[in-house]
Amino acid sequence: MLLILTGNGKGKTTSAIGQAIRVLGQGGKVFFAQFIKSESFSAGEDKILSSLGENFHFEKGGLGFVGILGDKLPVEEHKKKAEETFLKASKAALSGIYKLVVFDEINNALSLNLLSESAVLDFVKKVPKETDVMFTGRNAPVSFIEIADLVTDCAEIKHPFKEGVPGEKGREF
Amino acid sequence: MLLILTGNGKGKTTSAIGQAIRVLGQGGKVFFAQFIKSESFSAGEDKILSSLGENFHFEKGGLGFVGILGDKLPVEEHKKKAEETFLKASKAALSGIYKLVVFDEINNALSLNLLSESAVLDFVKKVPKETDVMFTGRNAPVSFIEIADLVTDCAEIKHPFKEGVPGEKGREF
Repeated sequence: MLLILTGNGKGKTTSAIGQAIRVLGQGGKVFFAQFIKSESFSAGEDKILSSLGENFHFEKGGLGFVGILGDKLPVEEHKKKAEETFLKASKAALSGIYKLVVFDEINNALSLNLLSESAVLDFVKKVPKETDVMFTGRNAPVSFIEIADLVTDCAEIKHPFKEGVPGEKGREF
Repeated sequence: MLLILTGNGKGKTTSAIGQAIRVLGQGGKVFFAQFIKSESFSAGEDKILSSLGENFHFEKGGLGFVGILGDKLPVEEHKKKAEETFLKASKAALSGIYKLVVFDEINNALSLNLLSESAVLDFVKKVPKETDVMFTGRNAPVSFIEIADLVTDCAEIKHPFKEGVPGEKGREF
């Protein structure tokens, strides 16, 4: 089953984390891959996610923001890393071992053209029925919305950044 | 700071869980109270939430669905329980001990009139600046949206229940 969390509001990655916790609590295995986000940027959740035991595989699979905030990497390197991460996560999803496979920020990786939309679509069609695949990130492609089983759009109604409050450790990362 | 997750889409409680995991990972303390949801209904996350250690307090503070699905309790009992849970969680939020205090499903408790909107509003105005208070549930009252710092509306675009697929262990609870 394909579950999509998209939209410009806060709560997509945290929701995927909560879903993973739910599945773990029911005894299922979880593979949690993050696109774009890199090892060198440590978010609060990383420490806990890395300590959840053998039923939880955490794969931090990006090289950081693409083309903004001082990124100097050639886009080819971002693409290579995204493709590697996609390969690992899609293998996990097709293995039948995991109840939930999260592709965190894959929607962004797609809209940045780090991955081929048609290759990802082909993969989604092969996922076993009993495995839940969750895609998060802004701007989910329409082709994915169409074939998804569950789609939630998280819309920003209000955000403190707009009022001049900076992103804070523990709230935004 | 008041953070609100509302809307009819899936992902609000899981997002609050993920936010809690993020705060824990940054070394902050979390108080996680659930309204309406009862001890006798075990969700997947409960087992993990109950094992997160001394920095995480989990309070399952409801008596189950109100007025539907065979609920035979007088509404006064639901009210009493909601008020008790609100008292515990609001004390925690005012103590300054916790970085994050989650009031999961409080929006539903408010729209079911289990709690007084003005009492909750009075409390919100007293919360220390450094404490994040998160309210989840459908139908957040307009008065809360107005004073909130961050609001995300999770809208259901597609849901498998509509296609006749029943709620499943590990996905919906």
